[in-house]
Amino acid sequence: MAVEWDLLITNVHLATMAGEGYGEIRDAAIAVDNGRIAWLGRRDDAAAAGSAALEHDGGGCWLTPGLIDCHTHIVHAGNRSDEFEARLNGATYEDIARAGGGIMSTVRATRAASDEELLRQSLPRIAALLAEGVTTLEIKSGYGLDLPSETKMLRVARRVADVMPVSVATTFLGAHALPPEFKDRADDYVDAVIAMLPALKADGLADAVDAFCERIGFSAAQTERIFAAAREHGLPVKLHAEQLSDQGGAALVARFGGLSADHLEHLSAEGIAAMEKAGTVAVLLPGAYYFLRDTTPPPVAALRAAGVPMAVATDNNPGTSPMTSLLLAMNMVCTLWRLTPLEALAGCTINAARALGLDGEVGTLEVGKRADFALWHIARPADLSYAFGFNPCVAVVNRGVWRDPIVGIPASA
Amino acid sequence: MAVEWDLLITNVHLATMAGEGYGEIRDAAIAVDNGRIAWLGRRDDAAAAGSAALEHDGGGCWLTPGLIDCHTHIVHAGNRSDEFEARLNGATYEDIARAGGGIMSTVRATRAASDEELLRQSLPRIAALLAEGVTTLEIKSGYGLDLPSETKMLRVARRVADVMPVSVATTFLGAHALPPEFKDRADDYVDAVIAMLPALKADGLADAVDAFCERIGFSAAQTERIFAAAREHGLPVKLHAEQLSDQGGAALVARFGGLSADHLEHLSAEGIAAMEKAGTVAVLLPGAYYFLRDTTPPPVAALRAAGVPMAVATDNNPGTSPMTSLLLAMNMVCTLWRLTPLEALAGCTINAARALGLDGEVGTLEVGKRADFALWHIARPADLSYAFGFNPCVAVVNRGVWRDPIVGIPASA
Ligand SMILES: [Zn+2]
Ligand SMILES: [Zn+2]
Repeated sequence: MAVEWDLLITNVHLATMAGEGYGEIRDAAIAVDNGRIAWLGRRDDAAAAGSAALEHDGGGCWLTPGLIDCHTHIVHAGNRSDEFEARLNGATYEDIARAGGGIMSTVRATRAASDEELLRQSLPRIAALLAEGVTTLEIKSGYGLDLPSETKMLRVARRVADVMPVSVATTFLGAHALPPEFKDRADDYVDAVIAMLPALKADGLADAVDAFCERIGFSAAQTERIFAAAREHGLPVKLHAEQLSDQGGAALVARFGGLSADHLEHLSAEGIAAMEKAGTVAVLLPGAYYFLRDTTPPPVAALRAAGVPMAVATDNNPGTSPMTSLLLAMNMVCTLWRLTPLEALAGCTINAARALGLDGEVGTLEVGKRADFALWHIARPADLSYAFGFNPCVAVVNRGVWRDPIVGIPASA
Repeated sequence: MAVEWDLLITNVHLATMAGEGYGEIRDAAIAVDNGRIAWLGRRDDAAAAGSAALEHDGGGCWLTPGLIDCHTHIVHAGNRSDEFEARLNGATYEDIARAGGGIMSTVRATRAASDEELLRQSLPRIAALLAEGVTTLEIKSGYGLDLPSETKMLRVARRVADVMPVSVATTFLGAHALPPEFKDRADDYVDAVIAMLPALKADGLADAVDAFCERIGFSAAQTERIFAAAREHGLPVKLHAEQLSDQGGAALVARFGGLSADHLEHLSAEGIAAMEKAGTVAVLLPGAYYFLRDTTPPPVAALRAAGVPMAVATDNNPGTSPMTSLLLAMNMVCTLWRLTPLEALAGCTINAARALGLDGEVGTLEVGKRADFALWHIARPADLSYAFGFNPCVAVVNRGVWRDPIVGIPASA
């Protein structure tokens, strides 16, 4: 009996990101049924395998897994272009802090915004990512810093997946910064963060728990308390670690079997060994490195040698990485840190999926996985990392549904 | 008698780029007649000044002069992502040269391409620029390196303006590299370049003449010979100068009253003084600096202090700057070289116009200038430089004609 699929895409080259290298299958076809990959292989073999209700000609494009941006703070209100301009006109950090700037200006704007307003302001940024083939997006809280506002951020993050063609993974980042109400009482604020967990867990708002472990953030001891509480609630952990200094954060998150350690410019050999052992993904964030004019790259060669999976993300946030292009992040890790184009693409597909604990669902083209694809008008996969400020995405498939890459923003938002 | 315009755009904030700072006019309107700016001012004063056959509500957006990319090599065939990938996988420059790579691979591909093919391959890159509000584009030859192929490149560059909503300024860059036919005979090739000028001039294909003055390019003496010939034919000059070393190119091009000296990472104080005296624009090209991981920034503070106008361009080319975002170039000059957002925007409007000798026509919002505008969904002009990998362009006006920023590529191309 002949198999009947929902959709068959023919005349494409596949970069499956499974197996060796790009997992290339040239002159290929891929079949979708019920929102999942039902078959893939050589185009000439498709007819023998089945037929589809709907067929699309891929026009000789490359088809990859939909891209995954596994580290963003993209839901937030306001921006900080005024500070950016003031600093370039000579204002010091102190001037800006005195004028109420810095992260607290984003906290104030985000706390003040309604759900609708927060969504409305975030959607253009999200649309920019989606136009480049992003089909899965991680969104962190962390500009609310109290239960109602953190809840609001995560609620809006969930709502993004209702109004836009993208799957969203949410991360609770209550320990992002110390709110003014807890000035000089960081331990008390950590207690407050831990006290937020049951409600967020009950409402199903957080898929993971994160913290900013840094001299100017939270200590390793404070982070550990938060991780222990997350474990009690059955929530996986990840960590902003070793961005500005080595706090032993990578080893700490690895000890908790964490999904990822992120940033890692000052990662030690011990941290790498611990991550390797725990299977913790290294999430590389070149946008902040570029925007802050940092000069210490993460230890890419050592991570590669140790076999630690490397993911790549935008870290979209108004203070240190107002970037909404995952393709640009791919170029940056190649240009600035000498990742290969293959590593860059793996970093936005399979390894980004691992960093979210979703590698059973997405990140490669394999039968049974979710049918999330991006189609690219390119000569070879390396083109995705080579050009910058250029978007060759010609179509996207979300859970089996073919769409134009340009995403309209709902009028209601 | 009431004045009747073709088009009136109301409910916008203007950054006229004329006068102090951004030349802001808030709550403004701007009128177009016969493809030129007929009136601009406070929105409330528009009715008293005239009325229009067609009116557009700008929705509270910012309206700036259309952006000008004043230095590109965007017409070319092929790309070099294979070399990019090979290098990141450990290949040396010698390996790549042995495999036929480098600029000569682009020369071979460009020579082999038909007019149609060259146009077809270039249009997606051009469309990317146009989607970001570019209304004037400079295009150089320089991958042909013989009269038929240089002519073809410039002919295709002219054709771009017929098939896409953009004005094109062409530059003859015969002295870009030494073609293999002239190996070890650079002076003979300079003679050949000079011999191409009359035909290009007769066909009206070149608006200016450029050269690559560098140890690995052409000497100052060879450049001077080309400039002298250009002057004889009444063609203005500009120069790729001081990118990798100080060759005295900036002073040379200034001596010929040149429009611009471009790159300038190794520019001397003498070069700056000569440029200031001659009114030669400094065209800053951060894409190549970033892509080549250069560490010597151009002397921005000294240029600013001397009052040399600074322009900003993509330098789009397959070898050292495969970038198609002028907004990203604006962010790069701010982030990497500490230009202010105002300087970055002036660099892509009025000063880019100066670098093309077109500042009487475009580059500011002033009555009588060409009605080339970009409309932006932003809170303030600094947003254009602050975000990266983000395009807030919501509409473009070319010679008075309102269009969507997304540019379709003609099916015939
Ligand atoms: Zn972050
Ligand atoms: Zn150039």
